[in-house]
Amino acid sequence: MLVLSSPSGAGKTTLSRRLLQDDRDIDLSISVTTRTPRPGEIDGSDYHFIDVGKFDAMAKNDELLEWAEVFGNRYGTPRAPVLASLKAGRDVLFDIDWQGTQQLREKARDDTASIFVLPPSMAELERRLSMRAQDDAQVIRQRMAKAGDELSHWAEYDYVVLNDSLDRAFADVKTILAAERLKRARQPGLSQFVRGLVGKA
Amino acid sequence: MLVLSSPSGAGKTTLSRRLLQDDRDIDLSISVTTRTPRPGEIDGSDYHFIDVGKFDAMAKNDELLEWAEVFGNRYGTPRAPVLASLKAGRDVLFDIDWQGTQQLREKARDDTASIFVLPPSMAELERRLSMRAQDDAQVIRQRMAKAGDELSHWAEYDYVVLNDSLDRAFADVKTILAAERLKRARQPGLSQFVRGLVGKA
Repeated sequence: MLVLSSPSGAGKTTLSRRLLQDDRDIDLSISVTTRTPRPGEIDGSDYHFIDVGKFDAMAKNDELLEWAEVFGNRYGTPRAPVLASLKAGRDVLFDIDWQGTQQLREKARDDTASIFVLPPSMAELERRLSMRAQDDAQVIRQRMAKAGDELSHWAEYDYVVLNDSLDRAFADVKTILAAERLKRARQPGLSQFVRGLVGKA
Repeated sequence: MLVLSSPSGAGKTTLSRRLLQDDRDIDLSISVTTRTPRPGEIDGSDYHFIDVGKFDAMAKNDELLEWAEVFGNRYGTPRAPVLASLKAGRDVLFDIDWQGTQQLREKARDDTASIFVLPPSMAELERRLSMRAQDDAQVIRQRMAKAGDELSHWAEYDYVVLNDSLDRAFADVKTILAAERLKRARQPGLSQFVRGLVGKA
C-alpha cells in the first residue's frame, strides 16, 4: 500500500494520476465522501459521492479502513476494494491526508509505504490553488490554513519528495515504488526460491 | 550506510565496483583482513592486508565496527574512515558477509540499508567461482558450502536483488540507493525547510 499525502495543491493528485497511467500493477483506492462534487469531478472516479447516512452506516459496519472529517465533510477509504487488490497481488495507491495515513499505518504498518509531497513554497501553493477555477477566495484561505496543518505532519511519513518540478517528483515517486517492491518482505516467492537454491547447495 | 551481501560469486563485488564508479556520493569501506592477497588484489584497494597481531590490536582498541572469522581468516571494518565519510555527509558502501551485517545493524539499524544479492542458481554460482583462476578446487568446494550458509541469512536483509542479469541487478541497487536517500530521516535539511514553509503559512 503506497500512500501519497500533501497539502492541497502540492501535486499529490496529479502525481497519483500519472502513476496510475504509468504503472499497470497498482490500483487507486477511491475514497467515499459526503462533500458535493466539484465541477468536473466524476462519481466513482474521483470519489464515490454518498450521503451522510450511507457514510455513517459504512463506518458503523467497519467497511472503512480509515475515515476523517475535514471542513465539515467526511472522507473514508472503503475496505473491500483494497483487500481485493492486495489479495490479487496488486499494489494500492492512497491519495489521503495525514489523518487517514495515521489510521492506515496503525492497521498495517509493515504493508504501508508513505510519501509526503512538499510544495516548493507557500506562494507557489497559493498560486496553484488560485488557478483552480472551482474554489472561491474563502475556500482558498481555508485550504491555505489547512496546508499548514497538513505540513506539520510531514515527519510521520517514510519518504519526503519535493515537488519543485513535476517530472522530477514523479521520477522520485516511481523510484520509491520500485525500491519498495525490492524489499524482502514484499517479494512473496523469495522464500521458496531460496529454499530451492539451498536444497541444491 | 549501504550493505551489499551475497554468497561469494553472486556478484556483490562487481556490483559494488560499478556503484562506486557510477555514484560520486558514496565511499567504499575497505575491510582489513589477515588472509593472504589473491593474485591481482591490491593492498589498500581490495583490502588492507594486515597480520593477526595488528588485527587483534584493532579489535581490542574498538577500532573495528564489526569483525568476523571465515575459514580461519579474520575480516573487519575499520571504524574511523566510516565515521569520517558519514560526518562529511557521504554514504558508505559495505561489501561484507552476514556476520558483519548483523553487527552493523545492531550498532546503527536506522542508518543502515541492507541488500542481499541472490545468484540465479547454484550451478551458475559454481560456474562463476570456477572461472576465477585464483581459486583451486578445494577452495571452490569450501566456498560452495559457505554459500549455503550465507544464503540461509537472506531474510535478515531489507532488500533482495536477484542477479540473473548484471545490468538489471545494478539498476535495482541504484533504485534502492535513490529511494533510501528520499527517506525522511536521511534528508537532514528538511526539518528547517518545512519550518520555513509553515512559518510563512
